[in-house]
Amino acid sequence: MSGMVVQNIERADLALVTALGECGVAAVHEAQGRKGLMAPYMTPIYAGAMVGASAVTISAPPGDNWMVHVAIEQLKEGDVLVIAPTSPCDDGYFGDLLATSAMAGGCRGLVIDAGVRDVKDLTAMGFPVWSKVVHAQGTVKETVGSVNVPVVCAGAYVRPGDIVVADDDGVCIVQHEEAREVLAKARKRLDAEENKRARLAAGELGLDIYDMRARLSEKGLKYV
Amino acid sequence: MSGMVVQNIERADLALVTALGECGVAAVHEAQGRKGLMAPYMTPIYAGAMVGASAVTISAPPGDNWMVHVAIEQLKEGDVLVIAPTSPCDDGYFGDLLATSAMAGGCRGLVIDAGVRDVKDLTAMGFPVWSKVVHAQGTVKETVGSVNVPVVCAGAYVRPGDIVVADDDGVCIVQHEEAREVLAKARKRLDAEENKRARLAAGELGLDIYDMRARLSEKGLKYV
Amino acid sequence: MSGMVVQNIERADLALVTALGECGVAAVHEAQGRKGLMAPYMTPIYAGAMVGASAVTISAPPGDNWMVHVAIEQLKEGDVLVIAPTSPCDDGYFGDLLATSAMAGGCRGLVIDAGVRDVKDLTAMGFPVWSKVVHAQGTVKETVGSVNVPVVCAGAYVRPGDIVVADDDGVCIVQHEEAREVLAKARKRLDAEENKRARLAAGELGLDIYDMRARLSEKGLKYV
Amino acid sequence: MSGMVVQNIERADLALVTALGECGVAAVHEAQGRKGLMAPYMTPIYAGAMVGASAVTISAPPGDNWMVHVAIEQLKEGDVLVIAPTSPCDDGYFGDLLATSAMAGGCRGLVIDAGVRDVKDLTAMGFPVWSKVVHAQGTVKETVGSVNVPVVCAGAYVRPGDIVVADDDGVCIVQHEEAREVLAKARKRLDAEENKRARLAAGELGLDIYDMRARLSEKGLKYV
Amino acid sequence: MSGMVVQNIERADLALVTALGECGVAAVHEAQGRKGLMAPYMTPIYAGAMVGASAVTISAPPGDNWMVHVAIEQLKEGDVLVIAPTSPCDDGYFGDLLATSAMAGGCRGLVIDAGVRDVKDLTAMGFPVWSKVVHAQGTVKETVGSVNVPVVCAGAYVRPGDIVVADDDGVCIVQHEEAREVLAKARKRLDAEENKRARLAAGELGLDIYDMRARLSEKGLKYV
Amino acid sequence: MSGMVVQNIERADLALVTALGECGVAAVHEAQGRKGLMAPYMTPIYAGAMVGASAVTISAPPGDNWMVHVAIEQLKEGDVLVIAPTSPCDDGYFGDLLATSAMAGGCRGLVIDAGVRDVKDLTAMGFPVWSKVVHAQGTVKETVGSVNVPVVCAGAYVRPGDIVVADDDGVCIVQHEEAREVLAKARKRLDAEENKRARLAAGELGLDIYDMRARLSEKGLKYV
Repeated sequence: MSGMVVQNIERADLALVTALGECGVAAVHEAQGRKGLMAPYMTPIYAGAMVGASAVTISAPPGDNWMVHVAIEQLKEGDVLVIAPTSPCDDGYFGDLLATSAMAGGCRGLVIDAGVRDVKDLTAMGFPVWSKVVHAQGTVKETVGSVNVPVVCAGAYVRPGDIVVADDDGVCIVQHEEAREVLAKARKRLDAEENKRARLAAGELGLDIYDMRARLSEKGLKYV
Repeated sequence: MSGMVVQNIERADLALVTALGECGVAAVHEAQGRKGLMAPYMTPIYAGAMVGASAVTISAPPGDNWMVHVAIEQLKEGDVLVIAPTSPCDDGYFGDLLATSAMAGGCRGLVIDAGVRDVKDLTAMGFPVWSKVVHAQGTVKETVGSVNVPVVCAGAYVRPGDIVVADDDGVCIVQHEEAREVLAKARKRLDAEENKRARLAAGELGLDIYDMRARLSEKGLKYV
Repeated sequence: MSGMVVQNIERADLALVTALGECGVAAVHEAQGRKGLMAPYMTPIYAGAMVGASAVTISAPPGDNWMVHVAIEQLKEGDVLVIAPTSPCDDGYFGDLLATSAMAGGCRGLVIDAGVRDVKDLTAMGFPVWSKVVHAQGTVKETVGSVNVPVVCAGAYVRPGDIVVADDDGVCIVQHEEAREVLAKARKRLDAEENKRARLAAGELGLDIYDMRARLSEKGLKYV
Repeated sequence: MSGMVVQNIERADLALVTALGECGVAAVHEAQGRKGLMAPYMTPIYAGAMVGASAVTISAPPGDNWMVHVAIEQLKEGDVLVIAPTSPCDDGYFGDLLATSAMAGGCRGLVIDAGVRDVKDLTAMGFPVWSKVVHAQGTVKETVGSVNVPVVCAGAYVRPGDIVVADDDGVCIVQHEEAREVLAKARKRLDAEENKRARLAAGELGLDIYDMRARLSEKGLKYV
Repeated sequence: MSGMVVQNIERADLALVTALGECGVAAVHEAQGRKGLMAPYMTPIYAGAMVGASAVTISAPPGDNWMVHVAIEQLKEGDVLVIAPTSPCDDGYFGDLLATSAMAGGCRGLVIDAGVRDVKDLTAMGFPVWSKVVHAQGTVKETVGSVNVPVVCAGAYVRPGDIVVADDDGVCIVQHEEAREVLAKARKRLDAEENKRARLAAGELGLDIYDMRARLSEKGLKYV
Repeated sequence: MSGMVVQNIERADLALVTALGECGVAAVHEAQGRKGLMAPYMTPIYAGAMVGASAVTISAPPGDNWMVHVAIEQLKEGDVLVIAPTSPCDDGYFGDLLATSAMAGGCRGLVIDAGVRDVKDLTAMGFPVWSKVVHAQGTVKETVGSVNVPVVCAGAYVRPGDIVVADDDGVCIVQHEEAREVLAKARKRLDAEENKRARLAAGELGLDIYDMRARLSEKGLKYV
């Protein structure tokens, strides 16, 4: 099953992908019914990055980053690399040279359920990475894996071409068929929040804005 | 037992509470005999914040943030929210809207043995959070918990009105009855450190300042 | 076996030690055949520090920092403290006063497979620390350990006088006898990377630069 | 997306499913190209159980086991329940009463990426469970989830009707369309192992049986 | 605050304490409103033990088991030792000699948020232990702690004399003032379960027994 | 540095090695001054095994068990395999076929800081294994490592020919040069324990046997 590179994958429209990134992870995750979120151990190497991009997926053996080179050739403008090792691994699959190459191919960042290294350089380059760990441990190039096959990455199921939304809150996957609908809902949600933010800042309570008091009482909440 | 909101809690004097925050966690923890410290997995979402505040506690079901809305109504100037889930949970109970509302109520920050989200916005707002994890995962509003009951949060026992001291070193709880005494001891300790710092910077050794050589030799330490 | 302070240890030449630090962890780790790396849970308290220094090692009981005072007397210009507890411990063995004293002794930083505290002050002082955790928990001074004996720290074997290379990617140990050879190889590696970086930035692929296509095909990789 | 019970799912032939269970996890995992394995934290509550069964999947909120009752109605002879919480949770979703009900419905066991309780009773009943943890913590019945939708459970992607193979080595998922082919390969592998076992027991070396010496030498292995 | 041995503590009636142990952790935990449960990492060293006993608590420094000797003198028939280190520790505080002494004092077992050793002997002696870990690492006797003060052990708040209920599902604490009421509720619960078990074994569904169908439909559950 | 098989290693006398195993881990660890213990996550696949054996060490790449075949040829009667991956790995490097071959070579068991599989068969064969995890995940045979070089395994430094003592309490390493002395001390300790056990069982207190009361009082312990 491994040893396969899928060359033509379906991607969502680039403007759509970019717009999803601008909504942020929390809004997008809510907008699509709270699915697609990666585990919280996936953290950014520097604060402040926000990405929306199409996934080029890599299924790689533990401690072997050969497939990253293969995947870079498949990148298009607006893509992100998503690397899932076939068994848990902390090795540093990716560093500044690979990032240089990936950026030349239009890549917007990396999501890896394993380690990354050269983080000082990657930060200076402005190449965002969400990883399980930072680790200088090198890898080999001995065993083939696959590129652009569905993977489970940090607990989320990712198909090639699905949209990765990532920011300081983590990483969320949007199925590419649902991108348009999720974007619409996320924007609606963000608009609604604006109004609530103003009321809350003025001292109104969520208990009143969301009309919670009766239901809380019904459920047995008592004030003493 | 759950389903209770205690409305009138005893708080320490606000100036006292604030002053404890200015002493910092390490000094306060030492001053009160090395008790009350939360587990080290509680980390701030941004560096540099220092808080002293009175605890409004929340005992919440896993994945359910309903009680946060209830607790916000109980906030007074100089309070901090302390959220302990009834079983381990990484969900993001709290984000920028709740922070907006809490700040309007005089809240100085959040301590949560679970997840937080919208950390980019919270950082921009200057609302400090100490949490187990950052996670965009949303919660429901279906099950009541309690507000202002004693909780165990990240290994520390916290009663409503106890004082939370938090900075980059972690989170420490001071019992409100002991606040005055602990503050006095912490200040004394900080003063004593000033003197030692100067001597150490000048090259004197702790071995001599603290007169350790004889006791080390007695305990069998050998130089080879 | 414990209760011993070794006073005269062999160190590599200071210029060599410093130069290794400038190469960075990833390059040094590769240059010496991918050995000597500490576990990835060892993280810096602030980003951006790069250290090359000679190890003064401490084998300390859990929750007891007495030996740190003993070790500080053994420091020479260009040293780093390496603390390994004899059983796993998260306590904060080290804070700003000890750092003040260590800096007065020429110390370039701390590597500790346990906790550190006063990180705000340490950051302001520019004293870099790589630790397992940040924790305000204090320690006692009751049981002797040893200074300048071989230790296992975060999975790496460290002898006194071995070279510690540490940066944002982690911590790597170079055996002092191999320092010169490793430095030469690391510099060669960094030079070679410069050339590759330019080619990759220009859009050449690693698949071609490293001539990987034939071997990938041999191993069965298929494009579909 | 949640709030859905899919009633008619495709299952593989029961004899096939049972036979896969008899091959064991290691053989099946190898036979299908080393895919489909759950994370190693999934452990059996008692040693010695071996199961092959068709998955009835449950996507459940954290701390809410309502959907288990819904799923039990969907069970057929030879099924296994596979429970994946929508965010990480250690609560005990399942105990001896649910097991009694599930067994009445033909269920062969439980795979849960969360907690289980009443393990003494479950062991006495001979109802095997592979779980992340044993925990007495109870759950609520307030929020709907889904039954028989694809889930990610302990890092493996599981569709309803896929085959669960579980034993003391862990849990592996076989896609139902591939069941026949995987069974054939697993049996072939087990037969081949019989022959090798005899030769190895007689003192022949793997180095010779698998003809490894030349390739090892080529790769640079040196005997000293 | 530390360095205190409280000699006269209030215990519940021994028959009551014993009876709570016979109800088991899951039933007792439910009966008292799902509170008092320790973290699930607390596991028994052998399967099958069930204990109800009054807590003699120990607050001990990391890696120092001196207070265990002090606590053993305080034991009465039907007690259990509850050890909480003042900071996280995996050391083996307790082995077969201490168990011999504790058994002579009427002790029914040990609950320790740290390590235990000699588990083969402890198993042979029938002395049950619930611990965080098994570890041969020895401890020192240098620093005093306290006996019979309130502690937080594995996330649960335990006062001396509170009742420990422990079995294969974990460890639960019952406040001694509530023992009688909790026992009554636990027994009622167990009786009710008997009836349900028979109905479920006969093939009735929880959906019907608990009358869930209407509420599920109301909450939006759909069958497809 | 890797790619080396050291063929002639120094081993301690077999009777000595065996006798150390019979003393058990806790006694041996104490007898040699509390050093050499592996981390507590190293657990036996079945209870009750006790091993004393000489280490044949393996430094293996993550997910690659090729060197195990190489090492088996180096085994002598009374040896144990000690496998340390060069970066953290949970893969199942070892199963029943390798055990069959190792047993034919006189091997007494396996210590591996990674995964093992076929544990049901290994248990039936009586081949003891101490591992980090049980995991069916297979490995490749692509990259050479080394055999009989010093390794760090689960936090302990192990040289080829050092003695492994392992039982239900964990794994401890004795340097082969110190074997005779450690055995003598361990036996003395075990003899002394016999006497104490009898006194403790008769109700004498450790406080009196070890004469602790005066020193406790001196350190400030107070009875209230």
